[in-house]
Amino acid sequence: MSRFLRAVNGRPVDCTPVWFMRQAGRYMPAYRKLREKHTLLDICRHPELACEVTMQPLQRFNFDAGIIFADILLPLQPMGVPFDFAQGEGPVIERPVRTSADVDGLRSEEIYADLAFVMDAIKLVCAELKGRLPLIGFAGAPFTLASYMIEGGGSRHYLRTKTMMYSEPHLWHRLMEKLSRVVGELLLAQHRAGAAVVQLFDSWVGCLSPGDYREFVLPHVTRIFDMLGSVPSIHFGTGNAELLPLMKQAGGRVIGLDWRIDLDVGWERLGHDVGVQGNLDPLVLFAPPAVIEQRVSDILRRADGRPGHIFNLGHGILPDTPEEHVKFAVDAVHRLSAGVPSTSAEARLGGR
Amino acid sequence: MSRFLRAVNGRPVDCTPVWFMRQAGRYMPAYRKLREKHTLLDICRHPELACEVTMQPLQRFNFDAGIIFADILLPLQPMGVPFDFAQGEGPVIERPVRTSADVDGLRSEEIYADLAFVMDAIKLVCAELKGRLPLIGFAGAPFTLASYMIEGGGSRHYLRTKTMMYSEPHLWHRLMEKLSRVVGELLLAQHRAGAAVVQLFDSWVGCLSPGDYREFVLPHVTRIFDMLGSVPSIHFGTGNAELLPLMKQAGGRVIGLDWRIDLDVGWERLGHDVGVQGNLDPLVLFAPPAVIEQRVSDILRRADGRPGHIFNLGHGILPDTPEEHVKFAVDAVHRLSAGVPSTSAEARLGGR
Repeated sequence: MSRFLRAVNGRPVDCTPVWFMRQAGRYMPAYRKLREKHTLLDICRHPELACEVTMQPLQRFNFDAGIIFADILLPLQPMGVPFDFAQGEGPVIERPVRTSADVDGLRSEEIYADLAFVMDAIKLVCAELKGRLPLIGFAGAPFTLASYMIEGGGSRHYLRTKTMMYSEPHLWHRLMEKLSRVVGELLLAQHRAGAAVVQLFDSWVGCLSPGDYREFVLPHVTRIFDMLGSVPSIHFGTGNAELLPLMKQAGGRVIGLDWRIDLDVGWERLGHDVGVQGNLDPLVLFAPPAVIEQRVSDILRRADGRPGHIFNLGHGILPDTPEEHVKFAVDAVHRLSAGVPSTSAEARLGGR
Repeated sequence: MSRFLRAVNGRPVDCTPVWFMRQAGRYMPAYRKLREKHTLLDICRHPELACEVTMQPLQRFNFDAGIIFADILLPLQPMGVPFDFAQGEGPVIERPVRTSADVDGLRSEEIYADLAFVMDAIKLVCAELKGRLPLIGFAGAPFTLASYMIEGGGSRHYLRTKTMMYSEPHLWHRLMEKLSRVVGELLLAQHRAGAAVVQLFDSWVGCLSPGDYREFVLPHVTRIFDMLGSVPSIHFGTGNAELLPLMKQAGGRVIGLDWRIDLDVGWERLGHDVGVQGNLDPLVLFAPPAVIEQRVSDILRRADGRPGHIFNLGHGILPDTPEEHVKFAVDAVHRLSAGVPSTSAEARLGGR
């Protein structure tokens, strides 16, 4: 069993497995070159292109897992909510979902069948990896998807989202029920297609209080993990460590930690019967290698060699991240967690 | 002693004092009317206008304290960093502070003397209040101000700010030392002018890990509270409850809580030897009165009548907040914390 899968299952490893959220992306010149000819959605919708982009970071860095190149918003179009990415900005949804009629009009059955290109891309990547590395499938969580649908794009305060939650709770729950079904089925389809592990991204759920999470999110995310059954899974959120115990309650063998909480404190709060993934601030990759090494080392020290830690960033890698710092960080995780003594980080980077 | 000051000092009160961050602002038609003729900075720089705006919410609602109308960025101009507010957007700083020469060029001595209009406005408000209500003075905290200076405006990832912290720590600390002096002196000047309590706003500090806070922020904020000595003070941050014990260590008689942590959990983590301020999600003010009442009641239940709780939002009130919901929430705090039995919230609002 691969190092990554062993960690997901809470088993001992020779050194800490590492992958980075958004590891295939704009910080890589190879990706930017491909984007000159294809839009992000084009790449998602053409399995050969999605496969090529998924493989790029695996050819360049010593990551312990791949993650299929896709976008959390892909289910929106077949649900009846078309969107596009505005130049240099986030997603723009043409007709946001705000009324009872809007929610009733959403398709939610077998949406994964309309996203067969994702499963096809997963099959291509698995064929290319030949079992050398495991592949991660993923989907956006219902709250995060609902916030895009309702706001019509990214949001700062989640005004319309929370207003629907507070003012029309029945409507909110109907929307979340539809989304949970779509997301659960999509994750299962990705697993059947070959994704060894699936990750649920609840990127924006940290804007909620614990009470709101419990009332408006927990039942729906719980349903998704119930659907997943024994499929190995990672449950990721950012921006509010107070939600961690509730996220664990909803499900996931491994819980993602952003950088706002010390890893040992977060793991303690969760309990050691789940794994943790994290928790380097993506901004640290802009720092000199000596600082990167110190931060990697600090996280590993806090993980204390306990089985079930997957090293990752606390959120997605940023577009301007220097590629050579990514390589340095990934190698530092392996080197430092295997207990190999460290020489000067600066010298090693210089000698690459 | 006023209800608000008693609570700041941890003494028992007849009912829980309440004020709202940004209680003077765009959600009030009276304020919007004034803004048709004057820019935000015009109002700040003219004591009669700042006084008028400060008084507006005190005339309309039963708040237990006023807060002087000003802006956390006011010290930037006299420090040598001019800025303006772009139409409908955030602040734009003409020449961001990024190099060693930029930091060396910053003025930091007696900046408060260039902001005499703030102290003049405080004096006008105090004269008008005649001791009926206490007035709060405030300033932005060094991290938050540094982030604006370095990024050149608002920021999502704090890329340049964190890069300076990680890559040029000596430069970062020099900048923070200058800012702490400016902020400490400004808060003291506001207190001398009549502000009974001062609040330090570290609005964006929640983007930091506890380790980064300890290394890059704590020593500077500690210096500010040392300068304040026995001046009654509130220390406010958002977005990362893991920082609360460190913020307490830095100083402040009362610590602000946003809505991401339950009030009882946050207070327990801080220890009951400091007060807490918070912690209603500003978005709840968009909900129907019955929901507002339920949320106010939940916070009061978690505070458990313990001396030292000041009711507030978890962050500033939003521009489109319905005025009548503000009135409802403020009155609900008083009514519910005084133990008066509640009748139907909807009926009461309807009958106003």
